[in-house]
Amino acid sequence: MTPIAPPRERLLRAAAELFYAEGAAAVGVERLCQTAGVSKRSMYQLFATKDDVIAESLRVHGPANVAGYFPDPAAEMPPRERILHVFARLEEQSADPSFHGCPFVNTAIELRDPGHPASAVALGFKQRLESYFQEHAERLGAPDPGFLAAQLTMLFDGAAVRAVMHAEPLGGVALRAATRLLDTAGA
Amino acid sequence: MTPIAPPRERLLRAAAELFYAEGAAAVGVERLCQTAGVSKRSMYQLFATKDDVIAESLRVHGPANVAGYFPDPAAEMPPRERILHVFARLEEQSADPSFHGCPFVNTAIELRDPGHPASAVALGFKQRLESYFQEHAERLGAPDPGFLAAQLTMLFDGAAVRAVMHAEPLGGVALRAATRLLDTAGA
Repeated sequence: MTPIAPPRERLLRAAAELFYAEGAAAVGVERLCQTAGVSKRSMYQLFATKDDVIAESLRVHGPANVAGYFPDPAAEMPPRERILHVFARLEEQSADPSFHGCPFVNTAIELRDPGHPASAVALGFKQRLESYFQEHAERLGAPDPGFLAAQLTMLFDGAAVRAVMHAEPLGGVALRAATRLLDTAGA
Repeated sequence: MTPIAPPRERLLRAAAELFYAEGAAAVGVERLCQTAGVSKRSMYQLFATKDDVIAESLRVHGPANVAGYFPDPAAEMPPRERILHVFARLEEQSADPSFHGCPFVNTAIELRDPGHPASAVALGFKQRLESYFQEHAERLGAPDPGFLAAQLTMLFDGAAVRAVMHAEPLGGVALRAATRLLDTAGA
């Protein structure tokens, strides 16, 4: 038998799943608590506001999302392949019916408030992606690794948005565009 | 004295403004009607559901948003400048405190439902941007104008997301990245 997780964990997991699938603004506290199997009273003993739940669920469950895009750090893989791996994974994810884009982008857009605690968490994860690109762009010897990292990050986010809007797999366009950015970075 | 617009127009204008500033899911019917100065009863006489209001406000007020990015069709302007004009405008818009990204992207992300009537409207406007890029990429003689148009569209959306997440002006990175895409399209 699987032991039942404590209320805090159940709430954060339900929040991460529901907010990603349906939107942080669209899902109310009632529904969240029902899904988590936690009373509203208990929720408000654990978190002061729904906003805190949004921020904390992103903080706790964000790393698993990020890990889905990065290769094993211990793997033998040159920097170019480490960058392209992220886009190959995005191509794969975009074909999954449960894909709804990048949870960090989605949360920031939904909240429209850079002062919201969850917006800061979302930006932190996005900067982690850009730092990853920059680190490997430096190892590649790109003439302007900071700019290349920004280009790759914008491509990643624009491609995720494209998959959501078209509601179909990217079909290789993101990976091809990333490859082109790397091929022309020295131009 | 400015004549008072009819209820339908007031509702659609209030919807376009509120949904853009705060999010379609975050703004309730109560608040929408109050802002528009229209009773809920009147709203439901005009529109069957809030979903219809979201779709119709995007359809009616979307063209003004699009027009803000495109140059005057009558202006003497070569295709390269016509493409870059869109990114120069995005750079400017990103410095405006009332900028919250692309309303079409935001709506599609918030709804998470390609079957929603507003998602179809949003995709239609996004495809109009991509067609614009493709038309001018063809005039430029780009070897693969469809791919270049997709690259430019992903860059536009990724750059808009970047401005929202960082909550600061793009500072030239989107225009520079678009210029680079055009310069290397033949590579």
